[in-house]
Amino acid sequence: MTAPVDPRLTALRTLLDGRWADVRAEVREQMGRFRPVEPGLSTEDYRARVLELMHELAATKRPHAGFAPEYGGEGDIGGTVVSFQALGYGDLSLLVKAGVQWGLFGGAVQVLGTSRHHDEYLRRIMDGELLGCFAMTETGHGSDVQHLRTTATYDPDTHEFVIDTPEPGARKDYIGNAARDGRMAVVFAQLVTAGETHGVHAFLMPIRDDAGTSMPGVTISDCGEKAGLNGVDNGRLVFDHVRVPREALLNRFADVAEDGTYSSSIENENRRFFTMLGTLVRGRISVAGGAGSAAQKALALAIRYGAQRRQFSDPTTGEEVALLDYRAHQRKLLPALSTTYALHFAQEDLVAEMHRIQAPGAVVTDEKAQRDLEYRAAGLKAVATWHATATIQACREACGGAGYLAENLLPQLKADSDVFTTFEGDNTVLLQLLAKGLLSDYGHRVGSLGPVGTARFAAGVAAEAVAEKTGLNKLPHRLTKIDPRDAATQRALLHDRAEHLLASLARRLRPALRPGNDQFGIFNDAQDHLLHASRAHVEATVYDAIATAVEQVSDAPARDLLAQVRDLHALSVIEADRAWFLEHGRLTVAESRAVTAGVNDLCASLRPHARLLVDAFAIPENWLDCPLLHVS
Amino acid sequence: MTAPVDPRLTALRTLLDGRWADVRAEVREQMGRFRPVEPGLSTEDYRARVLELMHELAATKRPHAGFAPEYGGEGDIGGTVVSFQALGYGDLSLLVKAGVQWGLFGGAVQVLGTSRHHDEYLRRIMDGELLGCFAMTETGHGSDVQHLRTTATYDPDTHEFVIDTPEPGARKDYIGNAARDGRMAVVFAQLVTAGETHGVHAFLMPIRDDAGTSMPGVTISDCGEKAGLNGVDNGRLVFDHVRVPREALLNRFADVAEDGTYSSSIENENRRFFTMLGTLVRGRISVAGGAGSAAQKALALAIRYGAQRRQFSDPTTGEEVALLDYRAHQRKLLPALSTTYALHFAQEDLVAEMHRIQAPGAVVTDEKAQRDLEYRAAGLKAVATWHATATIQACREACGGAGYLAENLLPQLKADSDVFTTFEGDNTVLLQLLAKGLLSDYGHRVGSLGPVGTARFAAGVAAEAVAEKTGLNKLPHRLTKIDPRDAATQRALLHDRAEHLLASLARRLRPALRPGNDQFGIFNDAQDHLLHASRAHVEATVYDAIATAVEQVSDAPARDLLAQVRDLHALSVIEADRAWFLEHGRLTVAESRAVTAGVNDLCASLRPHARLLVDAFAIPENWLDCPLLHVS
Repeated sequence: MTAPVDPRLTALRTLLDGRWADVRAEVREQMGRFRPVEPGLSTEDYRARVLELMHELAATKRPHAGFAPEYGGEGDIGGTVVSFQALGYGDLSLLVKAGVQWGLFGGAVQVLGTSRHHDEYLRRIMDGELLGCFAMTETGHGSDVQHLRTTATYDPDTHEFVIDTPEPGARKDYIGNAARDGRMAVVFAQLVTAGETHGVHAFLMPIRDDAGTSMPGVTISDCGEKAGLNGVDNGRLVFDHVRVPREALLNRFADVAEDGTYSSSIENENRRFFTMLGTLVRGRISVAGGAGSAAQKALALAIRYGAQRRQFSDPTTGEEVALLDYRAHQRKLLPALSTTYALHFAQEDLVAEMHRIQAPGAVVTDEKAQRDLEYRAAGLKAVATWHATATIQACREACGGAGYLAENLLPQLKADSDVFTTFEGDNTVLLQLLAKGLLSDYGHRVGSLGPVGTARFAAGVAAEAVAEKTGLNKLPHRLTKIDPRDAATQRALLHDRAEHLLASLARRLRPALRPGNDQFGIFNDAQDHLLHASRAHVEATVYDAIATAVEQVSDAPARDLLAQVRDLHALSVIEADRAWFLEHGRLTVAESRAVTAGVNDLCASLRPHARLLVDAFAIPENWLDCPLLHVS
Repeated sequence: MTAPVDPRLTALRTLLDGRWADVRAEVREQMGRFRPVEPGLSTEDYRARVLELMHELAATKRPHAGFAPEYGGEGDIGGTVVSFQALGYGDLSLLVKAGVQWGLFGGAVQVLGTSRHHDEYLRRIMDGELLGCFAMTETGHGSDVQHLRTTATYDPDTHEFVIDTPEPGARKDYIGNAARDGRMAVVFAQLVTAGETHGVHAFLMPIRDDAGTSMPGVTISDCGEKAGLNGVDNGRLVFDHVRVPREALLNRFADVAEDGTYSSSIENENRRFFTMLGTLVRGRISVAGGAGSAAQKALALAIRYGAQRRQFSDPTTGEEVALLDYRAHQRKLLPALSTTYALHFAQEDLVAEMHRIQAPGAVVTDEKAQRDLEYRAAGLKAVATWHATATIQACREACGGAGYLAENLLPQLKADSDVFTTFEGDNTVLLQLLAKGLLSDYGHRVGSLGPVGTARFAAGVAAEAVAEKTGLNKLPHRLTKIDPRDAATQRALLHDRAEHLLASLARRLRPALRPGNDQFGIFNDAQDHLLHASRAHVEATVYDAIATAVEQVSDAPARDLLAQVRDLHALSVIEADRAWFLEHGRLTVAESRAVTAGVNDLCASLRPHARLLVDAFAIPENWLDCPLLHVS
């Protein structure tokens, strides 16, 4: 007889599985059948093994779902990201290689190409018969992809583009699927025709023949061992005047006629480039999701270990104490767990929004919605991947020496997920991008107040600025203390912080708009402010996601439990930045100390439910099982 | 013609090299000759290669220096730790394997054994002919080594000890040199004689014969792949009633007579155990030093890369900007660099103190000095290794995708050094240990005030406590603002914080002394406070070390530069904890904001000198060279 399932577990699982519960169930069931990758494989064997898993995955038809229905897909954009995310419970090399193949390579062909590309290639891409690369990053340009140096020069005599690597720094670098398996690549290059450069465009071209030999003029090398993800064959591509037909241009947004005439539906080069890039937002969202799964898995391991492993005796009882009963241990893991919950719900919201905008037949087509999606994705990717890196590190340490052994999965999880903070956009650059978006929106919002509103608003901001500069703003002395365990208070604190940081940033950067001023210097001096504003904005959004999720739980005990998770998340975010709340008169000293006390209390009260909270992630047991969980 | 060397570089190198400059020069010269380990070796080949390097190292006679002069050593305890530390610029597997062999294994034989062990083994240990293990940690007990379960039961009939692993959790685990190379082991076990247990003692026993076959009754297994340090052969030892002669007991502090009578120069079992452990403090200090070298190397790579690598253009000049010119990038690396400097000087002070106490002919023999050394070592090891982990992570991220490639050294540095926060004492446990020591000292200090002094002191503390509880302590409004760039102010802030945290902790824990109270619960609830107090104490010590170092530089431009490094270190430590300074009325809002502004300003003003500051570490170029440094 098995023990009855705690109804809170069922309720939380249902909530966490959310709208794409059927996709999650399907992927879990598939993962339960996949044999985990054997530890200790050589790089070559590991790559071969992951390729094998790729084909098993293709056979499930799961990867097809994200593609357009006319080519055998389901157009289930959201479901595809969710299924990718669920792969994060398993081998992250498989997740990344699948992401390269179906998300980046296949995705670029789908969204940047037209029927001439779709008809010829999509089906084979979906089936995993045609493996490909997404060759954007160059050795010299990774974050600033608008200034890639690879050229694609149109030759009207032969109706071909000539793809060339003009300098060593223009070499395509870190390209997944390039070192071993890829047969084609979507190559991003500066399009030149009739002596004019039109910016970066994408070209679909072969890099190897069917036998695996490099195409003439294409030099492929191997990036070799990496910190992790060694099941993915990252490589480098150098092109020496390689000729491809005119039709190689993925021409959804721009084309070159036979005679070399350039045309585009988007006139402005800058806007055209960012429109093309924007269609690729799915990769960024997927990475945020993958990071979430990795953090969940690490927490599941560390919390199960901490609940079993005992060390040192309670002087009163003489019994050895479980690690997780130590407040210091709780503080390492439980706030991270609460934030992992919050990020999960924020990710779900983001996926839903992406689906609303990008799924076939989507009614939302306005540019603003698309741009907002990009900003949200940038911010959440940065915050979620940094959270994963820190959390997995904490989990490794919380498992001591056992956490350092490969057999206990944490080392690989840590090594594999580390680069998530870098690829699909360096996190710092992404937060800068978000800040730029927020500032632009802010400008519009303030502008729309009308002259009187703007003046009044400006005066308020200016008065606060003066108070801050002179140090006159003091800690508030309120008659009624605020209760940091109250959701409305949490929301107010986090949103007010985001708003205030943005308003003061806008004010600080205003001089940069004046001609003759050192624009770079002004922006540069405000970097910490700017990154803080972005992070605060993301944290306000993430908070809203878990606060809304709490309201959706109908099972009362589960709701109470999740409300505590929300409280711990909010209070630990506020605690980490309580200096700001103090400096800006948002918390009194007593309230600030109450926040810290609240984190401690919530750690203690969530401790008995920690196991249930990680079990609710429903990570397939065969991907968790390791000696660490069998502590005697 | 080579450019003339900046005199500041010479001055800083001299200062950093310090008292053991000759040892450092010698090790650097040796390392310059060692061929760096080839990347991508299989675990077995890597282990073989590191063993080869061990023998090369032994041939230099460097490892001999730490042993007693009567056995061919130099008794240069300090120099040995410094040379170990310098190895940290190279392969960390070599550093750890050397540490196991000469520090832990050889060190235990030296300090826990007597002439019967020294005469027979020391010379062969020094020469690397006899490789050994330090078998303390068990699967079930790592931090709480006082409660190890392995038994050593004396049999008076045969004059032998019977070494046994009574349960699976008593298996010796993570033991370096055990899986492949070790022939003997110092095994820690509960000594039982005449039916009585006398606590943990050390036994020197063979685990393999000369041919490498396990001794009868000894089962050796391999811990397998680890997150890093795969050149070290960690293994597990299980003993099935293995008989060793009575003389196997390392009998400096305790002995068993032929008839089974137990005797010890230290009557109290607890004190005896901690005296034995205390002699092993060198390992902990060495790990702190190794972490320092690893952080220095990571910073040298990331700062040189950041100064070359350019991305995005300055809108005014149109030129691409070096990464290190971005304030966000400076903030990732330069405060970490300043703290790395401060930790270097703190480490030097600690090594000098250890040398003063432990070198042959040392005049300091009092227990208090030894105990203080242990507390200092515990605290510095925790802070230095966490700093290394965070810094190497930041450096990896600061090098983007390039930082993720094995060829660029950062991945291995990160993976290898990660366990430094765990071995030779889990960092959290070490900070708890330090807090215990600080509290005990504090009790003595307060006690020595006499009745009136104590009452006055207690009243002051109590008044502040009331003010804090009621939130009545406000941010100070001073007529004269404090200048956070003033060294005396920095010192006062950091020491006052340490003192206050300790005093309030002592008050908070006082109820635990009352009988009947839940001692564990009271300590547990105060964990964050306790860890904070320990860290603040270490940070005050570390600050003093760099502040003193600044005063020692005679070259004025070098002193000015180092003073800025000190300022950045102090301000970034204060900035990270400025909530505390605000909550406790130590900084006004304006001052707190000035601290943040100060960090920004110092980042900007140290930027042009960042390369010089990492060059001053004088890391051998052949251990730094990698493609990352040749950015076009």
